[in-house]
Amino acid sequence: MATIDLNSDVGESFGNWSFGDDEAIIASVSSVNVACGFHAGDPRTGRKTCAAAARAGVTVGAHPGYRDLAGFGRRFIDVDPAELTDEVIYQLGALQALARAAGTQVRYVKPHGALYNTIARNAVQARAVAEAVAAVDPGLPLLVLPESEIQRAAEAAGLRTVAEAFADRAYNPDGSLVSRTQPGAVLHDVEAVTAQALRIAAGEPIRAIDGSLVTVRARSICLHGDTPGAVTMAAAVREALTGAGVTIESFA
Amino acid sequence: MATIDLNSDVGESFGNWSFGDDEAIIASVSSVNVACGFHAGDPRTGRKTCAAAARAGVTVGAHPGYRDLAGFGRRFIDVDPAELTDEVIYQLGALQALARAAGTQVRYVKPHGALYNTIARNAVQARAVAEAVAAVDPGLPLLVLPESEIQRAAEAAGLRTVAEAFADRAYNPDGSLVSRTQPGAVLHDVEAVTAQALRIAAGEPIRAIDGSLVTVRARSICLHGDTPGAVTMAAAVREALTGAGVTIESFA
Amino acid sequence: MATIDLNSDVGESFGNWSFGDDEAIIASVSSVNVACGFHAGDPRTGRKTCAAAARAGVTVGAHPGYRDLAGFGRRFIDVDPAELTDEVIYQLGALQALARAAGTQVRYVKPHGALYNTIARNAVQARAVAEAVAAVDPGLPLLVLPESEIQRAAEAAGLRTVAEAFADRAYNPDGSLVSRTQPGAVLHDVEAVTAQALRIAAGEPIRAIDGSLVTVRARSICLHGDTPGAVTMAAAVREALTGAGVTIESFA
Amino acid sequence: MATIDLNSDVGESFGNWSFGDDEAIIASVSSVNVACGFHAGDPRTGRKTCAAAARAGVTVGAHPGYRDLAGFGRRFIDVDPAELTDEVIYQLGALQALARAAGTQVRYVKPHGALYNTIARNAVQARAVAEAVAAVDPGLPLLVLPESEIQRAAEAAGLRTVAEAFADRAYNPDGSLVSRTQPGAVLHDVEAVTAQALRIAAGEPIRAIDGSLVTVRARSICLHGDTPGAVTMAAAVREALTGAGVTIESFA
Repeated sequence: MATIDLNSDVGESFGNWSFGDDEAIIASVSSVNVACGFHAGDPRTGRKTCAAAARAGVTVGAHPGYRDLAGFGRRFIDVDPAELTDEVIYQLGALQALARAAGTQVRYVKPHGALYNTIARNAVQARAVAEAVAAVDPGLPLLVLPESEIQRAAEAAGLRTVAEAFADRAYNPDGSLVSRTQPGAVLHDVEAVTAQALRIAAGEPIRAIDGSLVTVRARSICLHGDTPGAVTMAAAVREALTGAGVTIESFA
Repeated sequence: MATIDLNSDVGESFGNWSFGDDEAIIASVSSVNVACGFHAGDPRTGRKTCAAAARAGVTVGAHPGYRDLAGFGRRFIDVDPAELTDEVIYQLGALQALARAAGTQVRYVKPHGALYNTIARNAVQARAVAEAVAAVDPGLPLLVLPESEIQRAAEAAGLRTVAEAFADRAYNPDGSLVSRTQPGAVLHDVEAVTAQALRIAAGEPIRAIDGSLVTVRARSICLHGDTPGAVTMAAAVREALTGAGVTIESFA
Repeated sequence: MATIDLNSDVGESFGNWSFGDDEAIIASVSSVNVACGFHAGDPRTGRKTCAAAARAGVTVGAHPGYRDLAGFGRRFIDVDPAELTDEVIYQLGALQALARAAGTQVRYVKPHGALYNTIARNAVQARAVAEAVAAVDPGLPLLVLPESEIQRAAEAAGLRTVAEAFADRAYNPDGSLVSRTQPGAVLHDVEAVTAQALRIAAGEPIRAIDGSLVTVRARSICLHGDTPGAVTMAAAVREALTGAGVTIESFA
Repeated sequence: MATIDLNSDVGESFGNWSFGDDEAIIASVSSVNVACGFHAGDPRTGRKTCAAAARAGVTVGAHPGYRDLAGFGRRFIDVDPAELTDEVIYQLGALQALARAAGTQVRYVKPHGALYNTIARNAVQARAVAEAVAAVDPGLPLLVLPESEIQRAAEAAGLRTVAEAFADRAYNPDGSLVSRTQPGAVLHDVEAVTAQALRIAAGEPIRAIDGSLVTVRARSICLHGDTPGAVTMAAAVREALTGAGVTIESFA
């Protein structure tokens, strides 16, 4: 029987500004990536989000990002790697304390936005992030894009990595994601998204953008919760998976 | 034989801006209050400062402050108490992770600047800070002004408190500090400061501002390191104490 | 025939976080208080909001606040007055440049949130704000609470002041606002709010909280736009006023 | 008789953190690039620095940077160009207001740090900056590296550009700067630096890094003031130039 994790970004409100529908998305996923304050997520939001996850039995992961509130962590910053390591340590420690105060624990790490994208291909920043996680707790797994620089760096640092896939993104025949600059890169149709999620969860091949078959091996599927449509999509994916007998369960 | 702790604020550089002579002050004290990023202290500075303290065998304390880089944490902010609790939890967790990465541990908490002053007399913010420390680790002592609201709140929360005194501040006959707005509030003469430090360390009464005798009971004396003169003063106090046979040792 | 200005806070989004429905509120008011970046309002938001106001023929005012994104400018900060003056000058200049780039001009100043409340009763910060406006442009009027410290400070600085009233707040018999901590302080009923707006616009007395009659003289009425209900209320007030033959027109 | 401008970065303190010796550097140069708050320079510092420049008869330029206090504007940020335009407009307007309050005017623009370096070769960000200056005041000249993307973008936007050179940097035979990653890129010897400044001011060729002769045409020479050695060097350059009969005078 297939088992898969569903993960989503949460805790991205800041002060008076709210963002996303965390309660709704927590009801659909098994793991939440909680913002740590550098790209979003003030301390009160972080603690409340951890508490909501704990109440729902959802696993908490840390979601560190670049120090960039104005850009929501979505812009590359050419940070010195030693500084990046310490910035990630700082964010992980901060969220660990908030999670404990909320009666739970940080059980994995998934970097956010531009940092996630950068460490997929930039070995220097990838090593910096892996070193941070190893310094905080070498038992914390990193949720990563398969075949990425961060996967290599994490394994070199002795960390466990967990591969994630995207139910709403088109794939190239080699298993990499189709760039968002290309047409068809993002799937918007609920049936297409849920079908892709089901195949990934079952370990079956999916249709790549050119029509060929490709198998995307992943222990987690990333869902979005930043729009009402995204929340509806997440619920549909969850329902389709459970309806097909797939167990939705955290990897941590 | 008398034993006293000497504590000082460190780690208050930020990015390209340096502040204070941390290496020099670490050589004079037994405990350092390390900034946690909200009023000063970027993550790299925090980790490096913890590492320098660890090398010198000096105890690391967390020095959380208001979220106010522009004001260096020296301005009162009317923060909601639940939010303040979470901001302090966040800062403590962040510094704990940096300290561990530097091979040491956070062993006590001393709030900074306007937060220190506020919780001496504001019971609401005092409770908020005490709750934060209790949530992170009820074994962490709080370094406090004696007879203050934070002392009461910490004790009510089951926390150990450690009283501190000031070698360079004049005292009122009731043991409270003379307000900085009054003449004579700050001692500038090295001999007067070292003499007061010696008497406090020995548990002997000092001269209050009106000439009467008052006994200031403290397990720690606060020294400053933000000017070259302050660093020289700190070294003089240390030398006078050790010369008099006082053991300089952390309370933690 | 009566003439009144309707003003509302806008431009309070920041980066990826949106706030309020600026387009809708701009359709209901004659003046908008545009955030200047310290409590909310990144530069792109500021410019876009000025452009939307210009397109709608709505007057732009600057809405400076405390430097406090995390608190949305709603928390008192004990800022040094000389520093506050320069912070307000900085914000006014920044918004002037954005407004000009958007084809319009800053035509008045209304401080935000905790700064607005503070300068109503704190003469030192009031003077600091008045000095800032006078330094930038002594021709800029200040939108103020009547009988406040900022009104006195602005007049002492040679600035024109414009009194504002609140359609959805209860008044004391002396014309001051009932504190939000008291029951009945905020009116939620559309009919009550529009009725109060009509009376203020017509210069007729309103019912104070104790049932007595009080005349609130104001050239502008403040409306809110931060919730869907507030936007609906604003539209209802506008419709009631225009239906009664009141001219809705900026004071600037 | 030769005439040259000497420019230097100033106003880069922030809150409690001071940076550089602005008073000393203002005594040596004819133009100062004043930080505008995004990479450094709180409003009080900005106004005080403009006032000091005004007292010394030194020309004030705006020195906008990336929004990055933690990185002092020295790290590339992949900002959306429309957003960058508005961020630069915001900074220019803010400094204009502070300069006027200090009795002077912003008379030119020189971007800071990573933004300066980026717009030398990145046409998109260069256009974004040029558009910002044109929107604020098309009469403001831009101080630029010759033959750079920003020079082209500024000219295309109808702005005047002023070429600057570096007395303490080695040049390639084609007139470009030797990269800092190469040995010999920075000149440290006072005689070498003053000699190069004299030749540039006189319009005479200098020795490129390979020993060949290259003529660097510039109306301004950039000096540094962030270390005691840099301040001494700046004074030596000024003295050598005036001793040789060169007029030190702003271009604006």
